[in-house]
Amino acid sequence: MPEQLTHYGSKFSGYAHKTGIALEEAKAQYTHVEIDFTNKPDWFVSINPAGKIPAIVYGGAAAPADKPSPESTKLAESAVLLEFIADLYPDSGLMPSDPVQRAKVRFFNNTVDTVLTPALFGWMVGGAPASTIVDAFKKIQELLPENGQFAVGDRFTIADASVAPLYVRIVLLAEKGLPGKEQAAGVLEALSSPELAKFKAYGDRLAERPSVISAWDKEKSLAYLTMAIQGAKAAK
Amino acid sequence: MPEQLTHYGSKFSGYAHKTGIALEEAKAQYTHVEIDFTNKPDWFVSINPAGKIPAIVYGGAAAPADKPSPESTKLAESAVLLEFIADLYPDSGLMPSDPVQRAKVRFFNNTVDTVLTPALFGWMVGGAPASTIVDAFKKIQELLPENGQFAVGDRFTIADASVAPLYVRIVLLAEKGLPGKEQAAGVLEALSSPELAKFKAYGDRLAERPSVISAWDKEKSLAYLTMAIQGAKAAK
Repeated sequence: MPEQLTHYGSKFSGYAHKTGIALEEAKAQYTHVEIDFTNKPDWFVSINPAGKIPAIVYGGAAAPADKPSPESTKLAESAVLLEFIADLYPDSGLMPSDPVQRAKVRFFNNTVDTVLTPALFGWMVGGAPASTIVDAFKKIQELLPENGQFAVGDRFTIADASVAPLYVRIVLLAEKGLPGKEQAAGVLEALSSPELAKFKAYGDRLAERPSVISAWDKEKSLAYLTMAIQGAKAAK
Repeated sequence: MPEQLTHYGSKFSGYAHKTGIALEEAKAQYTHVEIDFTNKPDWFVSINPAGKIPAIVYGGAAAPADKPSPESTKLAESAVLLEFIADLYPDSGLMPSDPVQRAKVRFFNNTVDTVLTPALFGWMVGGAPASTIVDAFKKIQELLPENGQFAVGDRFTIADASVAPLYVRIVLLAEKGLPGKEQAAGVLEALSSPELAKFKAYGDRLAERPSVISAWDKEKSLAYLTMAIQGAKAAK
């Protein structure tokens, strides 16, 4: 039986969206503490010295968010936390039990982190063209199984929790004509073409998932991303 | 009972050193295929399209290294492979069973990958000063448990397998006065000072470990690293 778990996240951070989804999928008992990562409270460095969300405080007695029990353990880094949530709830299916399938989940997440994440930042604030995103989508698509609704089969895993926040943000921005007209149009065009049909069906399936919807404040996310895009343009 | 496992590695690549150590620690039954990563055979892209070592071919019938069984699974990325080896051999202790301890192993490896690895490259070929390495060592030292011989306690885990190849390379280079006189002296001086005493004792314990020694060709490694350092200097 897992102990008390406090999730320091944000309904508009992409990284905290991942752990938020995983906690919902695991049907975990947890306390969510909303941290505005654009204006973090001073005490937050006592939870995660790196100052980043998401973070999890686990175990020990229940305590105020800013004064966790000395018996608790403080954990950070979204990739670490996704595995931690899957370990706490082995019956959730968030990680398969077969070693090869587990390796596939981790390879998928590695590709999300090393290919799609930099593509998103390059496209969003670095002026990179639509093809940057399209190429990354194709690399993810190549990893999708021949059969199966999700990243590595028919069960939702932390691979799906990892990619979903990026997919929904890219589509949201592109539909709003962001980060720029051509950059947006190129992504939408590719997504409606046969070459990305499989990936789009997969992404849309994730976007409709209750956990993906409930762990996200879409409006706040759009406002934040728009601000980041404008900031990057102003800095040029 | 694990199936056939073929490890495409190298006795002088740092990344393959990690998986080589883990396989030895797990007392795995496996075939080692030595790949010269400075001059890879053409067929290797059929094992790992990214062309990187280490890679593992798992399952299926025994087959020649360049023509794996169609029933086998091809896996890559050292971080993924370390977890895979630990999953295949749960009794090895390469991963603890407790979720919090597992998270600590993964956070440690995350720190190795995001702090120590870039520090090593910066110092070795980027002209970064000794303090770059010393600061990274201090960050790793902070993660060491109050009690316990290894990264997260008294058992050797994939956290130890992950950091050992970097530690032994840095010490080897510094003892040879590489990458430069001052850069080397600064690292050796810090390692013999009280502020890094705990980390040095830990690193030296790893360096003496039979798995760390047997999965490494020290002379070949030194020749390769020296070449890389000279190449970087020539390019300036």
